[in-house]
Amino acid sequence: MRVVLVHTSHPGNIGAAARAMLTMGLERLVLVAPRRFPDPEADARASGATAVLAGAQVVESLDAALSGAALTIGLSARPREFAGQVLSVRAAAERAVAGATHGDVALVFGTEMSGLSNDELARCAVVASIPANPGYASLNLAAAVQVAAYELRVAAGQDGVWAARRFAPATHDEIEGLHAHAAHTLAAMRFLDPAMPKRLMPRLRRLFARAGLEREEVNILRGVLARIDELIDGPRRR
Amino acid sequence: MRVVLVHTSHPGNIGAAARAMLTMGLERLVLVAPRRFPDPEADARASGATAVLAGAQVVESLDAALSGAALTIGLSARPREFAGQVLSVRAAAERAVAGATHGDVALVFGTEMSGLSNDELARCAVVASIPANPGYASLNLAAAVQVAAYELRVAAGQDGVWAARRFAPATHDEIEGLHAHAAHTLAAMRFLDPAMPKRLMPRLRRLFARAGLEREEVNILRGVLARIDELIDGPRRR
Repeated sequence: MRVVLVHTSHPGNIGAAARAMLTMGLERLVLVAPRRFPDPEADARASGATAVLAGAQVVESLDAALSGAALTIGLSARPREFAGQVLSVRAAAERAVAGATHGDVALVFGTEMSGLSNDELARCAVVASIPANPGYASLNLAAAVQVAAYELRVAAGQDGVWAARRFAPATHDEIEGLHAHAAHTLAAMRFLDPAMPKRLMPRLRRLFARAGLEREEVNILRGVLARIDELIDGPRRR
Repeated sequence: MRVVLVHTSHPGNIGAAARAMLTMGLERLVLVAPRRFPDPEADARASGATAVLAGAQVVESLDAALSGAALTIGLSARPREFAGQVLSVRAAAERAVAGATHGDVALVFGTEMSGLSNDELARCAVVASIPANPGYASLNLAAAVQVAAYELRVAAGQDGVWAARRFAPATHDEIEGLHAHAAHTLAAMRFLDPAMPKRLMPRLRRLFARAGLEREEVNILRGVLARIDELIDGPRRR
């Protein structure tokens, strides 16, 4: 998978694009006749992704940049009269992931001001478009690279995100013990009429069921209830 | 739908975030104690989205920023021990679109250096994470806003992209006329053995079927074939 940036004007955008690529695991960058590169501004905006810039290949023509690619996908925000196949960036990413098994895929981005020209798009097998606000579809170049690279990562099935840590779940008996304790304490608090527990207890059950109680949480809640019990019983005993 | 940026350090990132929002049709920005705002750098990076900055609300606390929100979604790249529900940004966007029918949704982003704190995330109903390269998950703040806003737009069903212009399709008869003509001409060229058309014609049919031929294209192709016919027949007649 290679990302091709054509005639980029601002080196900061090249750096930001490199950063966007690396966050999604893409490392191969090809620059077609950039106005200024290498450049300190590119390095600054690349943040920790300077290795992508160091490995970037600079070529003179789009054809050189696309050499050897089995699938070429050009990004375009504006409708073009003679575009062949136009896909959403999500559908194009799915196609790219399928295509990557048969050879290298190139993702091609045009200039900041006007995107890819008609001639450049005609060299791409697929035109991909990022859904956007019709009144203001002006994604920054690196932002467009970020969205496309993100969709590639999701399409490749590398979309795992960290999961919340789970602790030991409460058993059925522990949960029923909690409910019984709560019903008793709430009644003792005169918060719950033991003859009419119709609304409150079912709502508590529903809440805890959705949460999926952990053992430690049951212990904490029972601790709270026990403390309430003490507060209620205590004065009577003294 | 509101976007909340908490303790943002660099005004350029606020501007770039505003631009990212507007490209996806989001306009309401709330800033919790930004270090510098308003600022010319924010305006510059906002490009055409300065109206989002002009309308931004500056508040002193996250609670003030979340006031009135029916669903709060905090973005976090790093696992947190005590996070409740963690969703991918895509799943969170689907939830947000469902939630938006019941009240306002807040999308919350932390600082450039360390994201949202544990306390801040604990104030969010849902924690959302953007799938990323585990070795370099450092999305720029505005890039994270871009991806989340993009997913919201797709989830809202506003993901239409421009379609390639279509011209009048060829009829079945026109397409069959083309195939018959091609078979005749290719045989005349001695390119196709009329007794053994097994591979070439089916492949051509497959290619044209995938393309979905238009009437004008059939006319062009038949023009080419007719010209070949002339070249073959011409010398014999003279």
